[in-house]
Parts: sequence; C-alpha cells; structure tokens
Amino acid sequence: MPKKQFTHIDDAGNPKMVDVSAKAVTRRTARAQAVITVGSAILKQIKNNELITKKGPVFQTAIIAGVMGAKKTSELIPFCHPLGLEDCQVKITTAKNNIVITTEATVTAKTGVEMEALTAASVAALTVYDMCKALSHDMVIGEVQLLEKTGGKKDFRR
Amino acid sequence: MPKKQFTHIDDAGNPKMVDVSAKAVTRRTARAQAVITVGSAILKQIKNNELITKKGPVFQTAIIAGVMGAKKTSELIPFCHPLGLEDCQVKITTAKNNIVITTEATVTAKTGVEMEALTAASVAALTVYDMCKALSHDMVIGEVQLLEKTGGKKDFRR
Amino acid sequence: MPKKQFTHIDDAGNPKMVDVSAKAVTRRTARAQAVITVGSAILKQIKNNELITKKGPVFQTAIIAGVMGAKKTSELIPFCHPLGLEDCQVKITTAKNNIVITTEATVTAKTGVEMEALTAASVAALTVYDMCKALSHDMVIGEVQLLEKTGGKKDFRR
Amino acid sequence: MPKKQFTHIDDAGNPKMVDVSAKAVTRRTARAQAVITVGSAILKQIKNNELITKKGPVFQTAIIAGVMGAKKTSELIPFCHPLGLEDCQVKITTAKNNIVITTEATVTAKTGVEMEALTAASVAALTVYDMCKALSHDMVIGEVQLLEKTGGKKDFRR
Amino acid sequence: MPKKQFTHIDDAGNPKMVDVSAKAVTRRTARAQAVITVGSAILKQIKNNELITKKGPVFQTAIIAGVMGAKKTSELIPFCHPLGLEDCQVKITTAKNNIVITTEATVTAKTGVEMEALTAASVAALTVYDMCKALSHDMVIGEVQLLEKTGGKKDFRR
Amino acid sequence: MPKKQFTHIDDAGNPKMVDVSAKAVTRRTARAQAVITVGSAILKQIKNNELITKKGPVFQTAIIAGVMGAKKTSELIPFCHPLGLEDCQVKITTAKNNIVITTEATVTAKTGVEMEALTAASVAALTVYDMCKALSHDMVIGEVQLLEKTGGKKDFRR
Repeated sequence: MPKKQFTHIDDAGNPKMVDVSAKAVTRRTARAQAVITVGSAILKQIKNNELITKKGPVFQTAIIAGVMGAKKTSELIPFCHPLGLEDCQVKITTAKNNIVITTEATVTAKTGVEMEALTAASVAALTVYDMCKALSHDMVIGEVQLLEKTGGKKDFRR
Repeated sequence: MPKKQFTHIDDAGNPKMVDVSAKAVTRRTARAQAVITVGSAILKQIKNNELITKKGPVFQTAIIAGVMGAKKTSELIPFCHPLGLEDCQVKITTAKNNIVITTEATVTAKTGVEMEALTAASVAALTVYDMCKALSHDMVIGEVQLLEKTGGKKDFRR
Repeated sequence: MPKKQFTHIDDAGNPKMVDVSAKAVTRRTARAQAVITVGSAILKQIKNNELITKKGPVFQTAIIAGVMGAKKTSELIPFCHPLGLEDCQVKITTAKNNIVITTEATVTAKTGVEMEALTAASVAALTVYDMCKALSHDMVIGEVQLLEKTGGKKDFRR
Repeated sequence: MPKKQFTHIDDAGNPKMVDVSAKAVTRRTARAQAVITVGSAILKQIKNNELITKKGPVFQTAIIAGVMGAKKTSELIPFCHPLGLEDCQVKITTAKNNIVITTEATVTAKTGVEMEALTAASVAALTVYDMCKALSHDMVIGEVQLLEKTGGKKDFRR
Repeated sequence: MPKKQFTHIDDAGNPKMVDVSAKAVTRRTARAQAVITVGSAILKQIKNNELITKKGPVFQTAIIAGVMGAKKTSELIPFCHPLGLEDCQVKITTAKNNIVITTEATVTAKTGVEMEALTAASVAALTVYDMCKALSHDMVIGEVQLLEKTGGKKDFRR
Repeated sequence: MPKKQFTHIDDAGNPKMVDVSAKAVTRRTARAQAVITVGSAILKQIKNNELITKKGPVFQTAIIAGVMGAKKTSELIPFCHPLGLEDCQVKITTAKNNIVITTEATVTAKTGVEMEALTAASVAALTVYDMCKALSHDMVIGEVQLLEKTGGKKDFRR
C-alpha cells in the first residue's frame, strides 16, 4: 500500500499547492463544528432573559461572519483553491454552558469544501467571542472539527 | 456596581460597532493559543523522521498564514476596528500528540488586539489542518483562548 | 399560489444563504443604473471646457472602480454567492444636471448577477462622488435600480 | 478667489491620489443616508406581521454589511486613503413605503470619512435589496447623500 | 488581415473588460518568471552557509506569497476575470548573483492564466525583496515575462 | 561592526514579522520604478496616432491599479505591516521602446513604504501588460527597483 503523503510539500521540501485540474467535477459537501465553552459570567446571561433577548444579534452576527468567512477561505489558507461556494449554512445553538456552531458547505467543483466548513465554524466562533468579550474573557473555542464530508474520493463521517 | 453590557448591541437590539474614538492610544498586546490534537496516523509522522523534515514547511506555512490572518481580523470579525498591527508572532511546537500554536500581537491604538491574536491562532491552526488533511481528518482544533492581554482598561492573564 | 418568501431567512428567523447547488447553469445577464444629480457648482464645470477635459479621468476612474466593485460583490453582500464574472461593462454619460451610470454584468452560473450589476453602479457612483467632492458636496446618488435581467427562472425588464 | 479644483486630477489630466501627509490629525465625523423605495409587494410585507418578524434579520444583516463595507471603502474607491475607522453606526428604519438607512462614521485622521459613511449606506442598501429581491425587484435605492461632516477644513450640513 | 486591437478600450476611448462569456472552456496553462539580481552584500550571504540555512524560510515565504498573490490577480488587475485557479506552482532557485522565480498556473476556464502566472512571479519577487531588504536595497527585479501559454486561441512559447 | 541580519527570520529558522512597536513615528517616503520593454508590434502602436489616443486609458488604468495595489501591499507581502498610506503617486511615460513607471509613496508611521512604492510599480506594470497583451506578449517587465527612501534610520538614494 502506498504511504500517505503530505501532498502540500514537494520533493525539495517546499510547500506547494495541489494540482486539482485533472480531478472530476462533483457535488461536494462538508459539515463542521466549533464549540465555545463560556464561564459563569456569560452563562448567567445565557440563562436569564437578558441573553435570550440579546443572543439574537450576537448569533446572527456570527452566522453572517461565518458565511462571509467561508467565502474568504482561499484567501486565508495559503494553498486552498478558490471555489464558487454554492451553499453555506451556519447554525448556532446553546447547550449547557456551551455555544455550539455547526456549519455546512456545498460546492460543485474539483476539490472539497472541508476547509470552507471549518473556516465558517472558526470565524463564527471568533465573532461570538468578540461580541461577548466585554462581559468576560472566560471563553474557550474548541472541538473545531470536521463532522462529515461527501463527494470526494472517499466520504468521511465522524 | 454597573452591570456588564453587551457593548456590541444597541438599545433596539441591533448589533453595533463600539465607538472607540474617545479612548486613549496606548501600547496594547495580546497573547493567544490554539492546540491541534492529532490522531495516530499523523502522530506517527510527527514521531519519525519524515515529519521532522516535513513539518518545517507545514509549520512555516501556518506561521505565515497566521500572521496574514491577523492582518485580516477586521475583515473577518464584523465589528472589529481596523488596526495598524505593529507586531504579530506565531510560534508552533509539538507536545505529545498535540501541535501547540501560540501567538502574540502588538499595536499602539485605541483598542486591543485580542481578536488579532485569536485570529492568528485560528488561521494558523486551520492551515496546519489543511496541510495535513491528506493524511487523515483525525484532527481537532481546541483550546483556542486568550492567554494574556495588556494595555487596555484592565490587564488579563489566564 | 404559494406566497413569496424571504429566501434569506430560515424558520428560526435567522439570516441564511440560499442553496443554489441544484440550480441549472445558464448564461445570466443583468443591467442596472445609478444617477448622480449634481448641483450648480459641479454642473458649471460639466458645461464649460474644464470638465470636458477633466471628466475623462473622473469617468474612467469610476468605470474601473465599478468593474472592480462588481468583482467584490460577494465580499460586500453577505449572502451573495461568489461568481466567475465573465463580463462587466460600465458606461457613464451626462444628461442635463445628471451623471448617468449604466452597467451590465454577465455570467454562466447557477445564480444571477443582479447584485453585481447594482454593485458596479453603486461603486462607480461613489467614485464619481469622491472625485468631485472637492468641488462641492451638492451631489445625490439615486435611481439605483435593476433595468433588466435574463437567464434565471424569470426574466425581468423595467 | 481661487477656483475650486478637481484635486484628483493632475496637470497631465491623469487621475491621482491627494497627498494628505501634511494635513492635521483631527477627529472627523460624517453622517450619510440611503433610502430604498419599495413597491407594493414588499410594502405589504412591511405592513403586516410577517415582515415585522422578518425585517429583524434583514435589517441586522444590512447593518453588519454596511459596517463591513465602510471598512472596505479604501479598497472600493480608488483614491480613498485607508483609515483606521474608530466608529461606524448604521441605523435602519421604515417610513411609509421607504426603508431609511442612516450611517455615521468617525475617525481621528488627516482626512475625512464622508466616503466611509456613504459606502456604509450604499452597501447596507444593496444588502437590503439582496435580502428582499426574491419578493420583487420593485425597489429603487436613492437619496444616497452626505448629511453632515465635521472636523475638516469646513463643516458641512445639509 | 484585421489589425490587432486594444481589446480593453472601447470606441469612446474608455477602458473596458473583455466579454469572455462566449469563449470555450478549455484547460489553460501559463508559465512565467521573475529574476532578482542581488548585489554583493546579499550575494555573500547566498554563497556562505548563512543563507544556505536562511534562504529556506525566505524562499518558502515567497512561494506562499506568490501562490496567494496569484489568487488575488483579479483583485489587482482591473479587467482580469476572476478564475477558479486549479494549480499554481512557484519555484525559486539561485544562479550566479540571481534569484530565479518560475511560476506555473493552470485553470479550466474561458480565459487564460497569463496574468496569474505573472502576478505570482511578481509577488514572490517582491516578497524576496522584502525579506532581504534589511541587508541591502541593492536588488533589482527584472525579466518578469511570460514563458509559455497553452490552451487559448494560440499557444505561445518564448 | 554587527553583522546585518535577516530580520525576518527567527533563531529557529522560521519566518517572522519584525516588531516595529518601539520605533519612532516619522514621515517616510519612498520612490520606485518599473520599466516595460515592448516589442515592435506594440512599439509601432506607441509611435503612431493609434496609441497616442489609446494609451490614455491604458495608462490611466495602470495608474489606478498601481495606487490600489499599493494599498494592498500588506495583504500581498506576508510580513509587511499595514500602513495608513497618506499619498501614492504613479506616473507613466514612454521612452524609446520602453514604458517607464515611477511611483512615490508617503506615510507617517513607524516603518517605511518601500514595499508600497515597489508594489505600486509592479501592479501598474502588470496592468499595462494586461491591457496590451492582446497585441503581443512581446513585453518584459524589468528594472523594478527602489530609487529613493527617506525618513527611516538611513536614507537611501540610487
């Protein structure tokens, strides 16, 4: 079995883009997530009415930032190919003392949208952080991971 | 004691930028981190010679992406103010089955650089992910958090 | 008859991108306009030789800004899909005390280019404004509207 | 009295940036507006409950897009100087069959923020258009104008 | 024989984008180069061990900047069409007192990638310059030229 | 005498941004150039009336692209600091079979604008290339170099 390679590194040890020009155009999707664990100060606001009112704009801002961030993926990740994103959904819910962000990206292209889904999740999480940081810096963004991908050589599901 | 507010939400419940025009120009720094937990496939490559050679370009690409990402913070986070970043350092080390990214941002301005440090860490982590994902998607980005900030109304250290 | 929906809002009342992945790839065009009404100070310059010479660079700068703005549409409008614009024309003429900008955008894609044509018109108008504002702020940008679109589910002509 | 000049055009008739390096750093503000006139289809939705619920996300998305657009002003308008925007407020209200957007930008710099305020208004208006266009293209963006500026050589108020 | 035209200028003498909507989608490639001639101060460092170690990060940074620059081509060159770049390779070698950058870009599209290859070469060269300029400004970037293009109406090879 | 260092490389051999936070804010200027050598096909058009008419929009487009490119310098060059450019002039003349671009950038900041002047020259040259390439690819961009810088630790003049 051939050993898996760092496809982004050439024989001389330099970083490189992967040539996708010969790959098939297929419908590709990816789902990812990020989880923000918040401390008691923010948690209290989540539990009482104040945040029930207030989290609307916080979450809506984060949704918008996540979608716009996904569109910037190839500007942020040096060797990502620019893709004509056909869909990007960002959902945000709260669970215990966590804020859970799930994202989904879709494209019909020669390469997958994992990085777009992950970037959407990361940027949405950073935006929630920015919107809440005046309350407290007791927040940690974690569990940023791919949940599923379809349409490439091999599907993936966590 | 006045209750802490969501400074990014106005009385009508709409999201808003915070007016920093009356704040003092001071030297402000922030340090942040992100940790990538990698599975056995990638871990094996970290432990043997292959990655010792290969991680150079992976990490250097991530360092560059992190710094460039920090410069894009105000484009990514809707209500971040554009800042003339004066320094941004990104360091990447390995520890057990983790890849640890620490960042530091500095500015002389009316508002802090927490989001710049956190964005640098997130984008660097996403770039490591992108460079390694041909090996395996068994990676999770976590512990994205602020470690320290100085120069604002109140210093912070975790 | 089914009621028309805000396609950009989901059931939970949050803003969202529209999934276009299942739509047909067709040739789509859109034409839009913007009209700048200028006051007497600028009007006088339009009427005498000075602006006849000078409007060349003003209008050429605005044409270029309009085309470049069209290419930035999906960065500016949160839920616009990134499109590989195949053509974008910006024409500027004067009529009475108005400066009339008409734009046309073309793409072969799964969604239309209305926003690209409208963005080209708006950015070109803002650029004319910027180039003339040292003379006077007596300018109003108006009549920014879609004139025609073809290639989608339903053609539109004003 | 010296004749007012097209400051953006040099002696050879080529467009040029204005040198602001010798100007004083002052606090500068600008207020601008845009008005969207909507037809009956959208108007009906504004009047009944549906849009009362729905306009929240439409307007919030437009507010965010307006602020982010203001931060992109110097990327859109060829000869605008990059400015470290210190505040940008976007408010959206409805009045009869109009949607009224007012913006305010603040900076401490060597040049004014008129174009930032006008760009915020234009991009917010385009975003409202984009969010509503599935209902009808019977919308016209107009009255994009500067309402007030302070802090430069000469204040302006309409 | 029809005279060759400035395709980017319309009948009124204004600059314009070229409409490529009717052109065939083909696989298109382009190769370009840039050469940096460095003076003795930098040359000495190239010849001794110091740069042998040091040029790694210098060149890797330039490779990454070149690829990212290629992705920005349509943002930089006013009438370039946005393209979904499928591959972009940047190689850097040293030869006598020269640093030689060669680039290759690939796309499957209606228009060619010459400007992408040339932009990659230029931005990589500027990045080498930036990384070395603390040593000396005795550097000249030259020989920025197209080496080859395929896939369009007519192939080109220098 | 201390040996000059690659300031952009840290002790571990990784690329890094230079910390300028402790440097003095001074007025800094830089002048740079690029020269495009064109072959006979384009030269003929320069010599006869056709280009005398036509070069207006070609050169004006390049001037605009150069200024806008200068504003993007810190997005293109990984370790360039974002600067609030206060002036950027781009001039284009013809001399024999050459097109000569000279640029000048000015800022009041903690670090210089050499890269901005050089980027303006490079992007203007690439734009001329793009505008003329339908005539012939017989063009070479060269002599991209710094002509002068002032305001930093040490002035430079070629």
